[in-house]
Amino acid sequence: MRTRPLKVALLGCGVVGSEVARIMTTHADDLAARIGAPVELAGVAVRRPSKVRAGIDPSLVTTDATALVKRGDIDVVVEVIGGIEPARSLITTAFEHGASVVSANKALLAQDGAALHAAAEEHGKDLYYEAAVAGAIPLIRPLRESLAGDKINRVMGIVNGTTNFILDKMDSTGAGYQEALDEATALGYAEADPTADVEGFDAAAKAAILAGIAFHTRVRLDDVYREGMTEVTAADFRSAKEMGCTIKLLAICERSKDGASVTARVHPAMIPLSHPLASVRGAYNAVFVESDAAGQLMFYGPGAGGSPTASAVLGDLVAVCRNRLNGATGPGESAYAALTVSPMGEVVTRYHISLDVADKPGVLAQVATVFAEHGVSIDTVRQQGRPDGDGEASLVVVTHRASDASLTGTVEALRKLDTVRGVASIMRVEGE
Amino acid sequence: MRTRPLKVALLGCGVVGSEVARIMTTHADDLAARIGAPVELAGVAVRRPSKVRAGIDPSLVTTDATALVKRGDIDVVVEVIGGIEPARSLITTAFEHGASVVSANKALLAQDGAALHAAAEEHGKDLYYEAAVAGAIPLIRPLRESLAGDKINRVMGIVNGTTNFILDKMDSTGAGYQEALDEATALGYAEADPTADVEGFDAAAKAAILAGIAFHTRVRLDDVYREGMTEVTAADFRSAKEMGCTIKLLAICERSKDGASVTARVHPAMIPLSHPLASVRGAYNAVFVESDAAGQLMFYGPGAGGSPTASAVLGDLVAVCRNRLNGATGPGESAYAALTVSPMGEVVTRYHISLDVADKPGVLAQVATVFAEHGVSIDTVRQQGRPDGDGEASLVVVTHRASDASLTGTVEALRKLDTVRGVASIMRVEGE
Repeated sequence: MRTRPLKVALLGCGVVGSEVARIMTTHADDLAARIGAPVELAGVAVRRPSKVRAGIDPSLVTTDATALVKRGDIDVVVEVIGGIEPARSLITTAFEHGASVVSANKALLAQDGAALHAAAEEHGKDLYYEAAVAGAIPLIRPLRESLAGDKINRVMGIVNGTTNFILDKMDSTGAGYQEALDEATALGYAEADPTADVEGFDAAAKAAILAGIAFHTRVRLDDVYREGMTEVTAADFRSAKEMGCTIKLLAICERSKDGASVTARVHPAMIPLSHPLASVRGAYNAVFVESDAAGQLMFYGPGAGGSPTASAVLGDLVAVCRNRLNGATGPGESAYAALTVSPMGEVVTRYHISLDVADKPGVLAQVATVFAEHGVSIDTVRQQGRPDGDGEASLVVVTHRASDASLTGTVEALRKLDTVRGVASIMRVEGE
Repeated sequence: MRTRPLKVALLGCGVVGSEVARIMTTHADDLAARIGAPVELAGVAVRRPSKVRAGIDPSLVTTDATALVKRGDIDVVVEVIGGIEPARSLITTAFEHGASVVSANKALLAQDGAALHAAAEEHGKDLYYEAAVAGAIPLIRPLRESLAGDKINRVMGIVNGTTNFILDKMDSTGAGYQEALDEATALGYAEADPTADVEGFDAAAKAAILAGIAFHTRVRLDDVYREGMTEVTAADFRSAKEMGCTIKLLAICERSKDGASVTARVHPAMIPLSHPLASVRGAYNAVFVESDAAGQLMFYGPGAGGSPTASAVLGDLVAVCRNRLNGATGPGESAYAALTVSPMGEVVTRYHISLDVADKPGVLAQVATVFAEHGVSIDTVRQQGRPDGDGEASLVVVTHRASDASLTGTVEALRKLDTVRGVASIMRVEGE
């Protein structure tokens, strides 16, 4: 074994960073054995140097992250600051000064992955980011490497623990969205401002990264259709149960049938209770992958948290250090397929639509005509009068597979019918 | 991209081999893009050269596997023959003549993994075998690489699809073992001689491989305790249901609490319905991993079949080819921890024991005394008289955690009691 240590600079020392530093110390012998050389924490860049950090030598702590990555003797920079800047500049500077980079930064990778990969390649360095998607779950490496000889057709995942906790709570208790969110906040599963989670921004960033890796095609954050889950109601869960389904916020990346284009989207959807993703409880994440040869795979585990994220960071750190000792780099960005990323209108799926309609003869015929005119084929219809006798009835339509554009056209036309008083909900049905 | 192709020799052209050859042809461009050079099928060694093999150039087919691996211009040998010999000699010869090796051979890896790894290392070549455990499920790479910075404490998996199909059928239909086996055979899930599957030999080989990788310790096939599932009855499933459990054939690799030793075992066990492994249906496989930092992870997918296994082989092929172009090798055997492998007696778990006892006062006290004398603490007891009034009652005891040795001692003593007419079943309870 080489005795001269590899030097690691840690950018950020919050929940994840402090756990990375801790494990680097407590598992130093293990890490050295797995890498073939010891690794040494050479510097820790923080915003608040006065904060006491157990187990970290204070002389390593600096507020000058730029100087740290410019030192020139750093082998690997671990970036766990998050956000776009200064993380982006620091990573680029790290490459320029000879370091490889391990990052957990999903927002940055989703927005600027192509440029960062190009910088890594220009300087012959590694950029690894297993921790950026689904926390501790080994996912990027299996997709990039284990399935490298296969053809992935769909990646469908629960990639945000906060929203899964809320939806699971609504499912198991019948609670409404606000009540479930309040509990998630009280238990620390949701942040004070939960927008990034509940509006699907976090999941959309992960969808962009996953789609890019799965389809060897650049997928930008802007390419991802995004719909949050704040409008999912207890009534939607009752409808889902009648269908033998539950509701999950899903990130779905699909290859089109002809193979020439891909789509990426995030929205709540009904999935059958028999689907492996339906039984993913609490704040856990899981990603379901369908490929030509391997068939159906699922990867399950904690999607967030200091220790799980640190586990993913350290796995990358070992790989990058090994590559460095070998004088090699791992697989870089793979965008050779360069497929078209199609807009949401071209996505084809099934829909569950609840309408409030006038409770009188002929309404169903009118509604069915609108669906037919837009080329959307109906699978089942359920009509029920209401006990309060307000002259309205509920009409629940489940469609066969149709394009999102056709469904949107259908709903617009339905809203113009006098007999349709309102569209109570539209929910996609996936996983069948 | 390099234009001179990497040369691949395929040993074996059965269900898996023919699928590997097919994908190498149909996905040639994809593979070249991912590797950075084209790959070329340079030879196929078979036993029956007269068999027509669609899509394979007959001039590549040979019956002389040894000559093929000795050619000297082969970059990677893909071994999908199975069994110990001639696979072992061919792999060793391949290393000696400059090739790296991708194998799907669990029996060989479990028995001779250490020697094969040593040969690979001596010649500076790669030995990859993702397909040897749990078919298409990316498992070895995540354990070896993604979790390389973490400490794995337990690996518990359903790693044999045939037995999971049989047990799932017994669970869902109430069928007995023989009836479920007959159905599995008729549907092609079980072989004409199902011994390797139902007696746990196949799962034991996989347990040895998994334990070695998870704990960085050599675990030989002989180190794995093995118990088949041919004695699991419909009554056991009824008992499991009363406990809120189902029964699975599990491969369990555990680190002891003090961290100094490990165990590996295969046997049927009750697991709670709420455990992620409980919902693994049909012939699917899944492996549940518990580690210090990552927490609980699960990997799910098809455990066998030509295409899924070929997917795993091709993922390895891409990695090995990339390493070769880089002039490097991937991580080799990691046995640095060299922990003691403890015998089954030291395994600590819970037990569900069904006894046929005399239906008279004082029996429970006698039985409870035997448990106490052997240091096995009882969690619950359920006693029921029998409607047929044969003077016997059933006594179901569920214990707290105890060592296998203590439990064995307890059962031996119970058998000697006059009032105990028989021990109907002993089942371990896992996953709580």
